[in-house]
Amino acid sequence: MTSLPIDPQLIADQNARLERHVRNDYEHLGEQLARRDVDIERIAAQVAAFGVAIPSWGVGTGGTRFARFPGAGEPRDVFDKLQDCAVIHQLGRATPTVSLHIPWDKCSDYSELRGQAQAYGLGFDAMNSNTFSDQAGQPHSYKFGSLTHTDAGTRAQAVAHNIECIEIGKALGSQALTVWVGDGSNFPGQQHFRRAFDRYLDSTRQIVAALPADWRMFLEHKICEPAFYSTVIQDWGSSYLAATALGPQVQCLVDLGHHAPNVNIELIVARLIAANKLAGFHFNDSKYGDDDLDAGSVSPYRLFLVFNELVAAAHEGVAGFNPAYMLDQSHNVTDPIESLIDSAEQVQRTYAQALLVDRAALDAAQQANDALAATKLLKRAFQTDVQPLLQQVRLRAGAAVDPIATYRASGYRARVGAARPARAGGGGGIV
Amino acid sequence: MTSLPIDPQLIADQNARLERHVRNDYEHLGEQLARRDVDIERIAAQVAAFGVAIPSWGVGTGGTRFARFPGAGEPRDVFDKLQDCAVIHQLGRATPTVSLHIPWDKCSDYSELRGQAQAYGLGFDAMNSNTFSDQAGQPHSYKFGSLTHTDAGTRAQAVAHNIECIEIGKALGSQALTVWVGDGSNFPGQQHFRRAFDRYLDSTRQIVAALPADWRMFLEHKICEPAFYSTVIQDWGSSYLAATALGPQVQCLVDLGHHAPNVNIELIVARLIAANKLAGFHFNDSKYGDDDLDAGSVSPYRLFLVFNELVAAAHEGVAGFNPAYMLDQSHNVTDPIESLIDSAEQVQRTYAQALLVDRAALDAAQQANDALAATKLLKRAFQTDVQPLLQQVRLRAGAAVDPIATYRASGYRARVGAARPARAGGGGGIV
Amino acid sequence: MTSLPIDPQLIADQNARLERHVRNDYEHLGEQLARRDVDIERIAAQVAAFGVAIPSWGVGTGGTRFARFPGAGEPRDVFDKLQDCAVIHQLGRATPTVSLHIPWDKCSDYSELRGQAQAYGLGFDAMNSNTFSDQAGQPHSYKFGSLTHTDAGTRAQAVAHNIECIEIGKALGSQALTVWVGDGSNFPGQQHFRRAFDRYLDSTRQIVAALPADWRMFLEHKICEPAFYSTVIQDWGSSYLAATALGPQVQCLVDLGHHAPNVNIELIVARLIAANKLAGFHFNDSKYGDDDLDAGSVSPYRLFLVFNELVAAAHEGVAGFNPAYMLDQSHNVTDPIESLIDSAEQVQRTYAQALLVDRAALDAAQQANDALAATKLLKRAFQTDVQPLLQQVRLRAGAAVDPIATYRASGYRARVGAARPARAGGGGGIV
Amino acid sequence: MTSLPIDPQLIADQNARLERHVRNDYEHLGEQLARRDVDIERIAAQVAAFGVAIPSWGVGTGGTRFARFPGAGEPRDVFDKLQDCAVIHQLGRATPTVSLHIPWDKCSDYSELRGQAQAYGLGFDAMNSNTFSDQAGQPHSYKFGSLTHTDAGTRAQAVAHNIECIEIGKALGSQALTVWVGDGSNFPGQQHFRRAFDRYLDSTRQIVAALPADWRMFLEHKICEPAFYSTVIQDWGSSYLAATALGPQVQCLVDLGHHAPNVNIELIVARLIAANKLAGFHFNDSKYGDDDLDAGSVSPYRLFLVFNELVAAAHEGVAGFNPAYMLDQSHNVTDPIESLIDSAEQVQRTYAQALLVDRAALDAAQQANDALAATKLLKRAFQTDVQPLLQQVRLRAGAAVDPIATYRASGYRARVGAARPARAGGGGGIV
Repeated sequence: MTSLPIDPQLIADQNARLERHVRNDYEHLGEQLARRDVDIERIAAQVAAFGVAIPSWGVGTGGTRFARFPGAGEPRDVFDKLQDCAVIHQLGRATPTVSLHIPWDKCSDYSELRGQAQAYGLGFDAMNSNTFSDQAGQPHSYKFGSLTHTDAGTRAQAVAHNIECIEIGKALGSQALTVWVGDGSNFPGQQHFRRAFDRYLDSTRQIVAALPADWRMFLEHKICEPAFYSTVIQDWGSSYLAATALGPQVQCLVDLGHHAPNVNIELIVARLIAANKLAGFHFNDSKYGDDDLDAGSVSPYRLFLVFNELVAAAHEGVAGFNPAYMLDQSHNVTDPIESLIDSAEQVQRTYAQALLVDRAALDAAQQANDALAATKLLKRAFQTDVQPLLQQVRLRAGAAVDPIATYRASGYRARVGAARPARAGGGGGIV
Repeated sequence: MTSLPIDPQLIADQNARLERHVRNDYEHLGEQLARRDVDIERIAAQVAAFGVAIPSWGVGTGGTRFARFPGAGEPRDVFDKLQDCAVIHQLGRATPTVSLHIPWDKCSDYSELRGQAQAYGLGFDAMNSNTFSDQAGQPHSYKFGSLTHTDAGTRAQAVAHNIECIEIGKALGSQALTVWVGDGSNFPGQQHFRRAFDRYLDSTRQIVAALPADWRMFLEHKICEPAFYSTVIQDWGSSYLAATALGPQVQCLVDLGHHAPNVNIELIVARLIAANKLAGFHFNDSKYGDDDLDAGSVSPYRLFLVFNELVAAAHEGVAGFNPAYMLDQSHNVTDPIESLIDSAEQVQRTYAQALLVDRAALDAAQQANDALAATKLLKRAFQTDVQPLLQQVRLRAGAAVDPIATYRASGYRARVGAARPARAGGGGGIV
Repeated sequence: MTSLPIDPQLIADQNARLERHVRNDYEHLGEQLARRDVDIERIAAQVAAFGVAIPSWGVGTGGTRFARFPGAGEPRDVFDKLQDCAVIHQLGRATPTVSLHIPWDKCSDYSELRGQAQAYGLGFDAMNSNTFSDQAGQPHSYKFGSLTHTDAGTRAQAVAHNIECIEIGKALGSQALTVWVGDGSNFPGQQHFRRAFDRYLDSTRQIVAALPADWRMFLEHKICEPAFYSTVIQDWGSSYLAATALGPQVQCLVDLGHHAPNVNIELIVARLIAANKLAGFHFNDSKYGDDDLDAGSVSPYRLFLVFNELVAAAHEGVAGFNPAYMLDQSHNVTDPIESLIDSAEQVQRTYAQALLVDRAALDAAQQANDALAATKLLKRAFQTDVQPLLQQVRLRAGAAVDPIATYRASGYRARVGAARPARAGGGGGIV
Repeated sequence: MTSLPIDPQLIADQNARLERHVRNDYEHLGEQLARRDVDIERIAAQVAAFGVAIPSWGVGTGGTRFARFPGAGEPRDVFDKLQDCAVIHQLGRATPTVSLHIPWDKCSDYSELRGQAQAYGLGFDAMNSNTFSDQAGQPHSYKFGSLTHTDAGTRAQAVAHNIECIEIGKALGSQALTVWVGDGSNFPGQQHFRRAFDRYLDSTRQIVAALPADWRMFLEHKICEPAFYSTVIQDWGSSYLAATALGPQVQCLVDLGHHAPNVNIELIVARLIAANKLAGFHFNDSKYGDDDLDAGSVSPYRLFLVFNELVAAAHEGVAGFNPAYMLDQSHNVTDPIESLIDSAEQVQRTYAQALLVDRAALDAAQQANDALAATKLLKRAFQTDVQPLLQQVRLRAGAAVDPIATYRASGYRARVGAARPARAGGGGGIV
């Protein structure tokens, strides 16, 4: 039988030193919130029930087109990745599911994989297909596109790959397929915009046809990269057009880093919620492009404003509102496990803060056009230090009060560094 | 009877000095194009038939929130504006219609106005409503919105104003209403995004109900300004959502300066064409925001790429394709008449260049993923110097070969400078 | 003798209801900070000593090129403005100085003005010149530039105006002149870049020559607006070139909204600190351009990262480090007094949070390239809810615990609304 | 003895079919230019003397962090690269030098390499160091920086590598070293901005000390990537600060894709020219980030405006003006040889167009603030179709009138595709 990767006793010992302060701070926060007519226990319950998926590829060190600098103990296969995800969930209790990327995460026995996950207390979130890079032995190249390629054979290959992802997902208990393509163009004139979009619809329709009735399909738009002049699903408008054409199982996924500069993302979220087409999120942060930095590391208030829309929609009972949450980051200079623990906590923190917004007062201020009062209601929630609440939720769940410190104390990285020999090579040379 | 504002003899005299070179250059260009299997006369005919509307407010000097520096002979009313538009059309023959802004262009006798326009050889393009500024004596203020205001009375006032614009337009022979609102918010939380959008739909539905059967309504989106945190119709996605909800008479207008940085505008144009929702354009150019610079003055190739989509759609016979073209610029440091003459020529030039693209070769290159060949086909058309063709078209139409030089020779600005006393004051003080 | 504009008894009464909670929360925060080896009293003392200047023009309602929607009780002259500034300082005790704009704030008796300010407990910060709009009767127009105009007479007029600002400032006890020009161009080719910069240096050199020995001159760069193709001092690089050429009294002012999208402002601040050329700040916030929104209202963490650089420089004792702080916002939809009170508190809050950063631990994490630990140290400081500290500082200073609520309770706006008749007209008509 | 890679007879045959039209078009263009007082032969001579360097890495297929899709005949070593460069220069005669990247282009015998280049008629431009990726067996990793690393040993290694590049360059006849580092940070707080910059200066000072007296060192700034929160030389301001601190041999290189959105690059060029710190250019184009698209492929007018500054500086005889020109592009979807041929021609075309600007008339228009006339002078030059001139220059030099067509007719790619076996692997897996 599989044991959890971190010794529970270590967690207990670490927590013991902090427990008194956590209880004290939690109690004081409770008093402060009570003065604002907020029941801290209700918030704590909602936060405890909240989860965000870990992408399997996120536990490996990321890179850029210039280089990749791997760390010790890089996961060698999907089982290693699952083990790392188990660490993250054991310490933080905020990440109950894993999202796989095919073919990177293919293995010979999905039943074994599913069993291993269950042993760790993990489930499987959306499946991710990959038609943006070529695999050895693949008959058709995706150099000039996949689902939108001018060649029918290439499109058929890409469709078949997506259907294979669904099949694997069914074996694992997943219920969603995320489709992101690198298709687009690098030169004005390279691609006929309208025809490429039509081919996209033709191809995705075939994938939808293979979708089980209880699955959803998530379309992920992106303004650029790897295509640098145009992309086929460049923004939420195109994503919405496609999702509408493809039917009710298809919705629009929002990755926080896939937008033009200055774009108001929370407003897009509101539009998709109203149109009943919000699939969910890939959380990360960015300053320049699709930087895939840790969620909330650069613009924490922007993340809050997104959650403000989500909490408002839930509060108002918007029909069909059911977004999926996933982290999607590239950890180039940190231990990926640490970044994912911390990012999951950041997402959780932001959710907790959004729950603190006084919705009735906000409605009134909005109705009265009292802009200052309205914005201060959001700010007051955001300024509230909910750390004691997050710690208390973890304490109660048997997770670590201070997950990063406990992780460092555990020696896990050194242990897998020894057990997993370094991969040769790794990126570079592409400029 | 109204005479044209510029003495035709002056035009003839000015042209006489250039005519020989125009014919010679046109002939040589014809030979070059013939080698590329292009019939110059076919292009000339299409260019001669092309027109772009002048906005009535464009003939006055524009300004910024910091200051406005008026020039001599600023138009005092809609009749003065019409006279200036007549100069532009007489010299360039590319601007057969005028687009009015209400209440700025209100007058006591629309029949007289229509007659005056006809005497100038001008017609009326789309009507523009104004609910982004308050007029003296107006019962409700638009400080916190118009069509989306939380107050029903303010919304009703804004709806009524738009319906009044339609009525005036009917009297003038217009067939379209352009709706742009400044509604939005300056602070996170100030506005409930979904409710504001619903109110927008409610209000615009009432306007659509008043629309004659042969009219269209154009929704104009804008990412920001005057609202600086969110706008109600912030991008083409929201514009499309609204236009779809409002029915087939309602389409999406593209102003080239209303997008986030880096956005691929020609791709948006392609999407709207495919969705049969492209209303038309407000042409201008920009480097930073909604700068309202002269069309093609900063990014002429971007303008070409937009026209490449338009010409392709016409070439392919896309059903329902029928965009309206208007200039929408703010002339802060030039004589507005000169800028409008030059911008109309720039739009015409770009259209001519887009007509030169070898569509069959482009299709083949796109199909073969020959990106370099495809992009060079566009570039070759763009690099072609079509000035002789534009000059020849004007020469044949009795317009000026060199409109700016002829305008300067005419002394028109000095004449109206004397006839129209300067307005006092003029902007400033807003920071 | 001048009395303070808000009845001190009202403040005391309002505070009385909150005092118990403030003391309790302050005490608990003190315990939490003590665990992090931070002495709350030291922070409180630093915050109490911190001040940010109010721009005189900020107490009037702002606007855009589209419209201005004034509120009740708009200040009619500099004495009205001073009174409004006194309200802000009385309630918040964070804004001890006022920054004037000439000619808007000209008056007949500067000695009287200075006396009035002293009676309010206010001083005068940097003087601001205005060569971006024309004044009635001005011999030369600034339509095509001021300090960089091609015409020597226009440049001389602009230089003389700046020297007049210095003279007024001397009478008022100011010690700095802020120079921002709207000079630039709207068209490629309109301006010879190098010659315009040379003319800028020639003109500013004459202003520097008139600068008292104990004054500084602040150069304010801006990427665009009102010039929309190029500006003469477009970024910190050009500002630095000019400041270096002009000598040690001249430094570079950073307005948070004057940069290209995505630019890392805190990095620019660090560069200017290292080069001993940081003049200070115009605080505001922005999402799209120079939006002049309330400081920290959209990107509070960005403001924190700027303060992190400032506190680090002070902590390390960087020689010559002495920045000036001013708010520079446009209040279009709020009561300007409320926005300024709130923004000053936001700046104060951010300063307090930056003081909480564990600098020794940060140094160690940076030295060890422990990116996660380093960034968490900043985040921990930012996440700390310092509201009790800010309230306690105000309580001790006789200001309002909740300044906005107290301001609303005071009825000040209604009072000045009655006393100050509305100005006619006001903006609009510029598109 | 090395023969040129393309059969000269093929070029002659291909040219023969086009020669008559070239002469005819050239003659007509000459007449048109003569009317504008431009001597076409003077322009032709300047264009013939113009050259832009090819980066050795540019002849291989580029890629992104997502994938690389190699083509046939990828160069295996620096000798293969040199051969590809020889093709480019033989067909276009616009690219007389090659710029090497160390260690990618290391070889065992630099004398042999130099001889091979001479046999092709090629020389060596600036050397490029690489401290942004780790090489096998390297003692210190650049994961957390190179010239700015907190560890002195790592910095020393990076310095030594740069000095090695100088040594290799000396053997090859190069006279410049380009230093671009990937150093920066991905998280707020990760790096101490001022200390990192100081370390940069310390390290680069040691490199400057090793620079031969007739060499220059080029500092290349970049706003982001591979570091995504801050970079050490983020903009021209920091580049200028460093170049000034490092002395007269050190100048600032401008890569067209390394700027924030909306930034006016030609204005930066003007500033660096005035400060005598313009090193030269890395030409490419971009729409979103550092896209490394083909020069002028997206924004040809922007490229023209840069050349307008260069031609103006040369025209005015600015002291010390001597920029280096290089292409720096990533060819992901085209045959790199074709892209480089075409991009070199595009740079040449743009230079030719900038030479056509009527400088005296422009000066007069600028002096008179006649913005429309000024901008039309630039536009008229840009609109001129100089293709006949470029063809004539190539014809006279024995290059191909239509280099892409001749290249395709030569079968070179198929030939090297057979001679150079495909490399295994190739990018991917980094997300």
